[in-house]
Amino acid sequence: MAGNGVFAEIYDGEVEVYKYYADGHWHKSSSAKSVSIINPTTRKTQFKVQACTQEEVNKVMEAAKVAQKAWARTPLWKRAELLHKAAAILKEHKAPIAECLVKEIAKPAKDAVTEVVRSGDLVSYTAEEGVRILGEGKLLVSDSFPGNERSKYCLSSKIPLGVVLAIPPFNYPVNLAVSKIAPALIAGNALVLKPPTQGAVAALHMIHCFHLAGFPKGLINCVTGKGSEIGDFLTMHPGVNCISFTGGDTGIAISKKAGMIPLQMELGGKDACIVLEDADLDLVAANIVKGGFSYSGQRCTAVKVVLIMDSVADEVVEKVKSKMGKLTVGPPEDDCDITPVVTESSANFIEGLVMDAKEKGATFCQEYRREGNLIWPLLLDHVRPDMRIAWEEPFGPVLPIIRIQSVEEGIHHCNASNFGLQGCVFTRDINKAIMISDAMETGTVQINSAPARGPDHFPFQGLKDSGIGSQGITNSINMMVKVKSTVINLPAPSYTMG
Amino acid sequence: MAGNGVFAEIYDGEVEVYKYYADGHWHKSSSAKSVSIINPTTRKTQFKVQACTQEEVNKVMEAAKVAQKAWARTPLWKRAELLHKAAAILKEHKAPIAECLVKEIAKPAKDAVTEVVRSGDLVSYTAEEGVRILGEGKLLVSDSFPGNERSKYCLSSKIPLGVVLAIPPFNYPVNLAVSKIAPALIAGNALVLKPPTQGAVAALHMIHCFHLAGFPKGLINCVTGKGSEIGDFLTMHPGVNCISFTGGDTGIAISKKAGMIPLQMELGGKDACIVLEDADLDLVAANIVKGGFSYSGQRCTAVKVVLIMDSVADEVVEKVKSKMGKLTVGPPEDDCDITPVVTESSANFIEGLVMDAKEKGATFCQEYRREGNLIWPLLLDHVRPDMRIAWEEPFGPVLPIIRIQSVEEGIHHCNASNFGLQGCVFTRDINKAIMISDAMETGTVQINSAPARGPDHFPFQGLKDSGIGSQGITNSINMMVKVKSTVINLPAPSYTMG
Amino acid sequence: MAGNGVFAEIYDGEVEVYKYYADGHWHKSSSAKSVSIINPTTRKTQFKVQACTQEEVNKVMEAAKVAQKAWARTPLWKRAELLHKAAAILKEHKAPIAECLVKEIAKPAKDAVTEVVRSGDLVSYTAEEGVRILGEGKLLVSDSFPGNERSKYCLSSKIPLGVVLAIPPFNYPVNLAVSKIAPALIAGNALVLKPPTQGAVAALHMIHCFHLAGFPKGLINCVTGKGSEIGDFLTMHPGVNCISFTGGDTGIAISKKAGMIPLQMELGGKDACIVLEDADLDLVAANIVKGGFSYSGQRCTAVKVVLIMDSVADEVVEKVKSKMGKLTVGPPEDDCDITPVVTESSANFIEGLVMDAKEKGATFCQEYRREGNLIWPLLLDHVRPDMRIAWEEPFGPVLPIIRIQSVEEGIHHCNASNFGLQGCVFTRDINKAIMISDAMETGTVQINSAPARGPDHFPFQGLKDSGIGSQGITNSINMMVKVKSTVINLPAPSYTMG
Amino acid sequence: MAGNGVFAEIYDGEVEVYKYYADGHWHKSSSAKSVSIINPTTRKTQFKVQACTQEEVNKVMEAAKVAQKAWARTPLWKRAELLHKAAAILKEHKAPIAECLVKEIAKPAKDAVTEVVRSGDLVSYTAEEGVRILGEGKLLVSDSFPGNERSKYCLSSKIPLGVVLAIPPFNYPVNLAVSKIAPALIAGNALVLKPPTQGAVAALHMIHCFHLAGFPKGLINCVTGKGSEIGDFLTMHPGVNCISFTGGDTGIAISKKAGMIPLQMELGGKDACIVLEDADLDLVAANIVKGGFSYSGQRCTAVKVVLIMDSVADEVVEKVKSKMGKLTVGPPEDDCDITPVVTESSANFIEGLVMDAKEKGATFCQEYRREGNLIWPLLLDHVRPDMRIAWEEPFGPVLPIIRIQSVEEGIHHCNASNFGLQGCVFTRDINKAIMISDAMETGTVQINSAPARGPDHFPFQGLKDSGIGSQGITNSINMMVKVKSTVINLPAPSYTMG
Repeated sequence: MAGNGVFAEIYDGEVEVYKYYADGHWHKSSSAKSVSIINPTTRKTQFKVQACTQEEVNKVMEAAKVAQKAWARTPLWKRAELLHKAAAILKEHKAPIAECLVKEIAKPAKDAVTEVVRSGDLVSYTAEEGVRILGEGKLLVSDSFPGNERSKYCLSSKIPLGVVLAIPPFNYPVNLAVSKIAPALIAGNALVLKPPTQGAVAALHMIHCFHLAGFPKGLINCVTGKGSEIGDFLTMHPGVNCISFTGGDTGIAISKKAGMIPLQMELGGKDACIVLEDADLDLVAANIVKGGFSYSGQRCTAVKVVLIMDSVADEVVEKVKSKMGKLTVGPPEDDCDITPVVTESSANFIEGLVMDAKEKGATFCQEYRREGNLIWPLLLDHVRPDMRIAWEEPFGPVLPIIRIQSVEEGIHHCNASNFGLQGCVFTRDINKAIMISDAMETGTVQINSAPARGPDHFPFQGLKDSGIGSQGITNSINMMVKVKSTVINLPAPSYTMG
Repeated sequence: MAGNGVFAEIYDGEVEVYKYYADGHWHKSSSAKSVSIINPTTRKTQFKVQACTQEEVNKVMEAAKVAQKAWARTPLWKRAELLHKAAAILKEHKAPIAECLVKEIAKPAKDAVTEVVRSGDLVSYTAEEGVRILGEGKLLVSDSFPGNERSKYCLSSKIPLGVVLAIPPFNYPVNLAVSKIAPALIAGNALVLKPPTQGAVAALHMIHCFHLAGFPKGLINCVTGKGSEIGDFLTMHPGVNCISFTGGDTGIAISKKAGMIPLQMELGGKDACIVLEDADLDLVAANIVKGGFSYSGQRCTAVKVVLIMDSVADEVVEKVKSKMGKLTVGPPEDDCDITPVVTESSANFIEGLVMDAKEKGATFCQEYRREGNLIWPLLLDHVRPDMRIAWEEPFGPVLPIIRIQSVEEGIHHCNASNFGLQGCVFTRDINKAIMISDAMETGTVQINSAPARGPDHFPFQGLKDSGIGSQGITNSINMMVKVKSTVINLPAPSYTMG
Repeated sequence: MAGNGVFAEIYDGEVEVYKYYADGHWHKSSSAKSVSIINPTTRKTQFKVQACTQEEVNKVMEAAKVAQKAWARTPLWKRAELLHKAAAILKEHKAPIAECLVKEIAKPAKDAVTEVVRSGDLVSYTAEEGVRILGEGKLLVSDSFPGNERSKYCLSSKIPLGVVLAIPPFNYPVNLAVSKIAPALIAGNALVLKPPTQGAVAALHMIHCFHLAGFPKGLINCVTGKGSEIGDFLTMHPGVNCISFTGGDTGIAISKKAGMIPLQMELGGKDACIVLEDADLDLVAANIVKGGFSYSGQRCTAVKVVLIMDSVADEVVEKVKSKMGKLTVGPPEDDCDITPVVTESSANFIEGLVMDAKEKGATFCQEYRREGNLIWPLLLDHVRPDMRIAWEEPFGPVLPIIRIQSVEEGIHHCNASNFGLQGCVFTRDINKAIMISDAMETGTVQINSAPARGPDHFPFQGLKDSGIGSQGITNSINMMVKVKSTVINLPAPSYTMG
Repeated sequence: MAGNGVFAEIYDGEVEVYKYYADGHWHKSSSAKSVSIINPTTRKTQFKVQACTQEEVNKVMEAAKVAQKAWARTPLWKRAELLHKAAAILKEHKAPIAECLVKEIAKPAKDAVTEVVRSGDLVSYTAEEGVRILGEGKLLVSDSFPGNERSKYCLSSKIPLGVVLAIPPFNYPVNLAVSKIAPALIAGNALVLKPPTQGAVAALHMIHCFHLAGFPKGLINCVTGKGSEIGDFLTMHPGVNCISFTGGDTGIAISKKAGMIPLQMELGGKDACIVLEDADLDLVAANIVKGGFSYSGQRCTAVKVVLIMDSVADEVVEKVKSKMGKLTVGPPEDDCDITPVVTESSANFIEGLVMDAKEKGATFCQEYRREGNLIWPLLLDHVRPDMRIAWEEPFGPVLPIIRIQSVEEGIHHCNASNFGLQGCVFTRDINKAIMISDAMETGTVQINSAPARGPDHFPFQGLKDSGIGSQGITNSINMMVKVKSTVINLPAPSYTMG
């Protein structure tokens, strides 16, 4: 159970506050303050975490810098071995961590377990990938370039950046944390994790698994607290050598303030689903429902607008409605499909989009229904570009359908968005599939499937306001290294013979 | 004109025999014998080339070995510069070389010019590609592997093989020669070319363009002669470090006799064209005609058997017949589509296949017609697996159609062949396209187009009896190098910091 | 001659002001204002360029965005062809461009010509490199990751970023402009160049060579003006999708204000030269003089501090002094080794460092001498860490020597700098060479040679305050692209067979 | 214990013969014959294995072909999972397998255990490497090549070869078997192992670990028998798609008879150790002893000739002699350094080389001593090029020293050998180290260490008569795949936008 057994150490039972992790130990903040985490289902305080101070952040940064230098001198296979160990421990303790996910972010029980298990796989895969990326550099010779003899041998390799600041979002507080932590570590970096408020306790448990694996003191750190106190302080901290952030608009603000460091940002999305007349309509309906309503639409890669050829729209809408009717709605503990959204303000925002659409004449395929943070799944047909929901992301179980008269209209709507995360197109036609994918200006286009982050080794990136940098295991590792070269200058040309 | 102007040097006007090229000069063979080249159209001797002796081959090998050592010590950019120069000279002299192609192998006049120009492009592209492939090695560290500290730095690079023996076929004696010569040279190898008998004089002209570019003496060599005298002698010569061969079954025999050296073989093919019911039938017909009858079917990547769903077969056959009706038939000088096949024995072999099909009941879409080496284009419908032409490659303007009842039947026929060069599938369906391509056991599968070697930087390979090794510019260069490593052993672990 | 012949078009002879380049034409600014360029030697106005307005910048950005979309749809080989053409035109017109370099930045005449020629080579090399980088993506399959069948094929490729803003520095206004322009263009981006004030006219001439090559309208642009008016306006412009900047501290400020876009920054350096007791001292002296005083020390990769083992310091100092005695001092037109530094304020800054060192007791190996912007080459021995010149970069012909008692002391000084561009170490010992290189925390370490940017295909990067991102032809292209993926989702697993 | 416990299944206790492995089961040969394995120490029959028939080989080949097709359709991560399992089982059962190595090939007890453990690591590393190599192909576009629009997308990937025949040598019958088996399997191939006679029983035990891991029936096979009966039959078998052989001259013969299939050959070596005057002589002596006498010199990468500058030769010889005095000589069970060589004929061959050297005047640093197959370690000084031992490899504990007057003399001797496996050079000088390494025509040159195969992910290759193809984990996997491409042809150009 959360905060018990091997996890007892991370919990201050006296005042019922979870500790933060720094320099290889679990600490109470000198602030003596805490931040409350509201259970989205009960809307009551579920957990409390430390409200760390700037002073504590400073100490973490200093210790991380020192730990990193030693870690960068640790054999690659040893780094990997520790990560494999952490992965195994994580999987072993999937139950208490999943429990936190249920309580903190109302994730359906089974999905919560899946998130932890998939995270373990990700850590192991990353370890092996990193051994290969960090272990292989380039050997370049000078005589490729006009005018040069071969008297210079350049040995270029990938080396750690230093201290990586990881800021994952609430919806996958474990998976999107390890997708930053594991690449950072295998690449030889130190790590400071700032978990989201909702999901912080799950993240602290996950971090403890790394602690148990035996990583060196100071290498991994996790600070919790109020954004107003340590938010900008962290992102603008001179000790930070890289920021990997997943979340919303905040990311753009961080980008504008951060110093001269590599940024990996995955922000919002408004993933369009373009449906052509020749598509497999059952496949389409299944993907719309799965893509639009999994985890109540609180996924960056959720289908967020359906752009469908008018001639097949009625049929698809019917199929989707029918499938939606089978979605269960209720608390995450019961493993319902649709669970309360993460906060009341989020529910209010979603409701705002729904009301705007109502006013402007969208067709409601179901009655709008909300209880507390729980919003029943809703399909809005005949949405038009003048409605907010045509452009804004609800991050909730509400999905707009825009009927289009031509493929070009669909592509145009997709590309007119300020977002560019993913998109998808449903068609049986190979030429259309490829050419529409080429035309859609998003980081990824899925042909005949809903958008998806995974499998985790695939490149994953947002264009425009959806982010910067490419993720996925390989790309994340490459993003957390820099190049260093050694040039051997010989007194005379030398060509290797054999 | 051939053998004139800058090419006067390569021709012994007295006895009307072309010379061979060795050690930077044009020579007459001490054999005082020559080999005659019969013009396929006139069926009369067009040209004569030297019948080199084994002694002369030995000298060439020795000189090549010496020249190679110095060439391997030449800066990459200088190697590239010489190749660019050769490419320019080649293009400049396209007319006389194309003229040889017309006379020696009855290649239609325009195609002959195209072959030379495309060869120049290939040489230039190869030069730049090679600068990059040869100029970049790997830097590996020891601590990737369990149990090791980082005390060993491995610098691995690609180095020349030595002397490459290139044996191109008659159908593209210039293009399929430079596709071996350019990779060999940029990679730092010396080169011995044994041109096909038909096409030898075009090849000699082409080699002279390299001579004019100023390559070092002995680096490039071209010997002509009788297979019985110098064929096996060349391929089994201990001075040869690599054989790149394009041609027929001979390649398998060579493979079984050659020593422990890298082989690049591109042999025969029986490229199948699978046509599904949902295909664009005009596109299909156009590709069958182009794929089946270009250069009278004398292409390794010609469509050699059409496997078509019965339900659309009649329609496609009609369209193909109609297009075939527009093919011009006659001498290459008139730029006819269908010209005489390369030799009388080839024409006889084709006729044998046709007669066998006739006996066994194939439907003749046109009357069979032959004059000398000239065979009129012929479509054989309702071909069945018991006919020879279902499995053997005619290498002429005769194309069998097999009607199939299922896609699986088509795939099965394709995979039952001992060849595995290319194949193609025509369908609009993206799933079928990919899955059928995956199922066809050939080196390349073209979706919605006839088989094709090019563009020249694409990988090109035959499976099973169709060859070994992958060609295409990048792969050919990689095939003509070997790995050499230098390991720096340090007295203590050292990790690069930054 | 500058502004004449083919270059007449770029010059407004009436008011003697050079025009700016936008939308495929040369324009006068609507501001009717100009910026003066002072000749460092004469200290008089040599040239004038347009003071562009923000409105004009906006127009440029819009046109660039439009042009980029079409350019991204241009075949790679055509992009390369245009760059090759531009390279040839650039080399052809090396004389007038070099003349500008002499007048604007007092670059010695021969070096000025070399800069232009080397720039042409760089453009051509970049073209070919880019064809390969942009032309090859990855094909990934889903079944690498645990739990997945092979039903997803991911096609990932590199695509243009959009509009690249290039800001080169005064010291190589042509070469460090094309090292940004060529990668941007071959990768499919549009380009806005903001040249340095000193060097602007050389840059305008260079841009005209690209104009003459026939690039599409709007794709390449060059705006001149006052930093106060259009500096931040450009770097914070929402139309900019990438900034490639070479220069000083400004880069850090730009980084902190720029939005969520890729940044390539190459800023200052304080390249250390560590000399061990076993080094080849003649080689050391030659490299110190070349590394420290070429172009009067106004190079980012100049040797900026010598850290030498005390036991060999006297001997090296003597050798360096002797070589320095042979340096010619005077105007760039006479091809002198040491020419006036770029501005009076620069000369004053250098003098400040010299005076500080004098006060604190450094040994002057030569008398300090200055006339206007011309400063005679000066070696300062026995410099200590409390002197400013031990840490600050003079960007002038003044070189400090710090005597060290141990290698560790040298490494420590090198790593204590806030800069991390390059460093060098002189030793004959292979173990020391590698291990010291590993320990020096700079982007590149040269073993037995002075720091150097080139050859241009080598990686080139600054760590810490010296920059972000890696340059060199290959890395610059890779920096100016982003990843896009298309995922083909199949209805069932499919494995390719053969 | 060997043949007991989980291994009972592989042993026919009745007739005391080990079984062979085919189609997922352990079989007795229908020949009812066996091959005896003589213990090198006792010189008595230790074990017996089946003498398989050609008929049995045929069946194995057929079953392997079938099993391979299904295996090629198995997800990569599942292939890896099975290999990880096999690796764990192998390590778990290191004791009985090591016991076989002691009895069959007289490997010192500790080294025998190390071989098994290292083999497990190799299998695991290979699994992860292969997931990455097989899981990533290339996406190429047509518009890189002049004249093409982007209307062709080429998806090229690496696919299995089919059935791989692995023939490891006696000296590392487990390690050099798994270094072929693991790459073959992860790449999707089926495997037929023909173990060496000495070492066959260790190999059978190892194969049983793979059996226990649960690989599909028929995928892995191990046949034993007489070379005269099944040697050529195997290597010339039409069902074999690749041969990976490590051993002696036989490899050259195999190469000349094998069909058109990829060959990986690692044959003999005569690794030279060049010692310069400035070398660390203690390091040299330690490496000569370790490099020359480990496993009694029965290693392909043993130091096989020392080429030492005369001026330091006396000192090195003294140091080496002193270290040799500490080598223990005796049975492998006692973990002696020097143990009996593998066969009597081997001992006789070694003795022949020693006697030849004696006759021709070599200086014996120790008395020559032999008892049965046990030969005491022997250093021969003042060896000259006319002695056989200057060129032939003893594969025993006898090491020749040739004194050289110049480095060039050393390089010349190294390059005059028909072998080209590895070499090493000892010098402190970085320039000499690199330039001599470049000049030595061997697959690998070790700077300041004895030749070594490992770490196992480094490239490992022999030039000239030492082999063909490059090994090491990465290269071995790449060698056991071929290229297949799918080209998507679009009806119009399409460029991916974003």
